Amino acid sequence: MASQARGVRTRRQLLEAAATTFLEHGYEGASIGEITQRAGLTRGAVYFHFASKEELAQGVLDEAVTTEGVRSQPIRLQELVDAAMALAYRLPREPVLAAALRLAVDKGVRGSLRTAWPEWIELLAGILEDAVRRGETLPHVDPGEAARLVMSSWTGAALVLDGVPDGHDLEHHVGTLLDYLLPSIAVPAVLARLDTAPGRGQRVVAEMARDAS
Amino acid sequence: MASQARGVRTRRQLLEAAATTFLEHGYEGASIGEITQRAGLTRGAVYFHFASKEELAQGVLDEAVTTEGVRSQPIRLQELVDAAMALAYRLPREPVLAAALRLAVDKGVRGSLRTAWPEWIELLAGILEDAVRRGETLPHVDPGEAARLVMSSWTGAALVLDGVPDGHDLEHHVGTLLDYLLPSIAVPAVLARLDTAPGRGQRVVAEMARDAS
Repeated sequence: MASQARGVRTRRQLLEAAATTFLEHGYEGASIGEITQRAGLTRGAVYFHFASKEELAQGVLDEAVTTEGVRSQPIRLQELVDAAMALAYRLPREPVLAAALRLAVDKGVRGSLRTAWPEWIELLAGILEDAVRRGETLPHVDPGEAARLVMSSWTGAALVLDGVPDGHDLEHHVGTLLDYLLPSIAVPAVLARLDTAPGRGQRVVAEMARDAS
Repeated sequence: MASQARGVRTRRQLLEAAATTFLEHGYEGASIGEITQRAGLTRGAVYFHFASKEELAQGVLDEAVTTEGVRSQPIRLQELVDAAMALAYRLPREPVLAAALRLAVDKGVRGSLRTAWPEWIELLAGILEDAVRRGETLPHVDPGEAARLVMSSWTGAALVLDGVPDGHDLEHHVGTLLDYLLPSIAVPAVLARLDTAPGRGQRVVAEMARDAS
């Protein structure tokens, strides 16, 4: 194996070990020692990639800025739905994403590191601005405001509802959330054509993987 | 001062010191030593009230179960609005509430301590069930589902939007959130009479204080 490929693999291994450790102990409770051990690497190998715990946390946070890749759709608001549903499908399956979410709501971390919130809000606001121009939205809709609400409500669902004993997965909860929010955003003709059914997230993720390969 | 009153005051002092410390360092990063020092007490005084850091965290979490006290209203859905707006007004002003919120989304804490989520969801679901019986809601509304969504979206707003640079406070964000969600919950005649304007939270909290005194 070429040394560059090995480097990429080691970095990935480290981010996954860091994610699992941050999820278990939070940012302050995590130690580089535990991350090193979990990754099965030497201290030297770790410090070659990340100079500090802070850099490891930033590495995890940066992996969560995966705002690219949702396929464009005839109805722009479907892209908003697709971004929310794809992330809901991925979150329980990818520890690095789940750790990034928890780091991003940690007050200490948010003060000193970059989080994905501004980029996510910008992405959603961009889709909503397009939707406004195409007449897909109700007259009162402010793209920035609606983007902040969709983003923050999505986050609340991801953080709170995984512990509520109702037998549903995050994709179901996010679909229901969108069913409640979208009638205040989309004009009725557009609303009737939006697909928020469970399974949408998985299909969108599969399409993204095909497009990327 | 009678020793019982002193005990209550010391306990309160401790919970506030613990809240500030949990907010700064998270659950795992916080130490009883720092909490003791911040409260200006001796170790002995601390252990008289709380045997462990876990008990301190549970004490902070229990303070946040303040689901009583919203005045009853001719329209039941206004009570749902009032509970959400009053909490949005209080959260930035009460470190114990803010700490409880952060502890309650900490995966480690949620696994081993009681959080206020189930009680809050039950409170909101109870209001919604009453609203359904009175014909205030649209036909599709499921009280449990709507309660979970309002609770989780409220939490997302509290955790994400305090860091977004748009100049608005949490009460404004929660008011906007309710303006987006309620058209999917309330029948139009009820919707038109609900008050979600900023300032509502402060008035509700003032009324609760008057009723309690």
